[in-house]
Amino acid sequence: MDMFTAIKERRSCRNFLPEPVSDEIIEKILEAAIWAPSPANNQPWEFIVITNGDIKKKIHEESTACKKTLFEKSGWKWIDRYQMGFLVEAPVIIAVIGDSEKTGAHKFLPGTEGTYQHGCAAAIQNMLLSAHAMGLGSLWFTLFEKDAVRKTLNLDPAKDPVALVCLGKAGTASPPPPRKDAKEKTTFMR
Amino acid sequence: MDMFTAIKERRSCRNFLPEPVSDEIIEKILEAAIWAPSPANNQPWEFIVITNGDIKKKIHEESTACKKTLFEKSGWKWIDRYQMGFLVEAPVIIAVIGDSEKTGAHKFLPGTEGTYQHGCAAAIQNMLLSAHAMGLGSLWFTLFEKDAVRKTLNLDPAKDPVALVCLGKAGTASPPPPRKDAKEKTTFMR
Repeated sequence: MDMFTAIKERRSCRNFLPEPVSDEIIEKILEAAIWAPSPANNQPWEFIVITNGDIKKKIHEESTACKKTLFEKSGWKWIDRYQMGFLVEAPVIIAVIGDSEKTGAHKFLPGTEGTYQHGCAAAIQNMLLSAHAMGLGSLWFTLFEKDAVRKTLNLDPAKDPVALVCLGKAGTASPPPPRKDAKEKTTFMR
Repeated sequence: MDMFTAIKERRSCRNFLPEPVSDEIIEKILEAAIWAPSPANNQPWEFIVITNGDIKKKIHEESTACKKTLFEKSGWKWIDRYQMGFLVEAPVIIAVIGDSEKTGAHKFLPGTEGTYQHGCAAAIQNMLLSAHAMGLGSLWFTLFEKDAVRKTLNLDPAKDPVALVCLGKAGTASPPPPRKDAKEKTTFMR
């Protein structure tokens, strides 16, 4: 698939069909992930491919509890209405884990200690684009308590669950959410 | 260009030719940027397109001072050797600015306040891929003091200079840096 087409057509999918995703496709998605750039090429990512139904259920329960707390704190109605069935319905969730000790030179630069997450985010974007190019829907999900996910996935405290990437054949398509034009977001220093 | 080809062939370029980059190409790169996903679609990015030589020079001076501090703190020889002429040589630098107030629900979720940066990082990855697809080299640069860049670019304290993206026709190509295979980075929970 053409790169610009993939970038423009990729949508966040919250509605997955049960059809399993082959290991071959998962490998291609992870191969795309590891070609992302990272600070000083320290590749601060790891991937946990979750197809186990009990683990997905546990993640769903924890995110539902997290959602409740978020609604109580914010009062935002969209949070209360937000349905997260995709966490059990998606045939695969890939947890993208950042290594918070792979900070490189940023550990000496105050306020930039989290820069390893940028590499993980670039890897995730590659994953979403390649999933779309292979006909899969995807969702970059971050509404969870990091410590709860650490416990479920048996991670050391230094390992940072940056995101859960849900993957699978998409059900009904949703329209692209509105975006501000690049021109409105850009200034020039000529 | 095919998406997987763009993902695999993109390199970090530190060696730019002086040939200017057209506004049309810059617009296409920024159009790719804004199609990135972001938490709750809050599009936490802004772009400052810098072609002004004095600003580039100032950024180079500040990053050189930052590099000196980093070398003193770390003692790492690669930092001392790291040449940053690309900051003045690149015909364009696009500063990608994150809005730290666009946290959405993450502001209520301790330790995730920086999640707006993930959206910016996804936008940057789209920029690098589209630059490569149009025959340009690029560099995702983060070795700078955020406050120094804020001052140079006249930014409010809440605006976060996530990265400086250097763009231009590449000089000599560098070989791909080694990467750990995805298999070494992956575990399965089946």
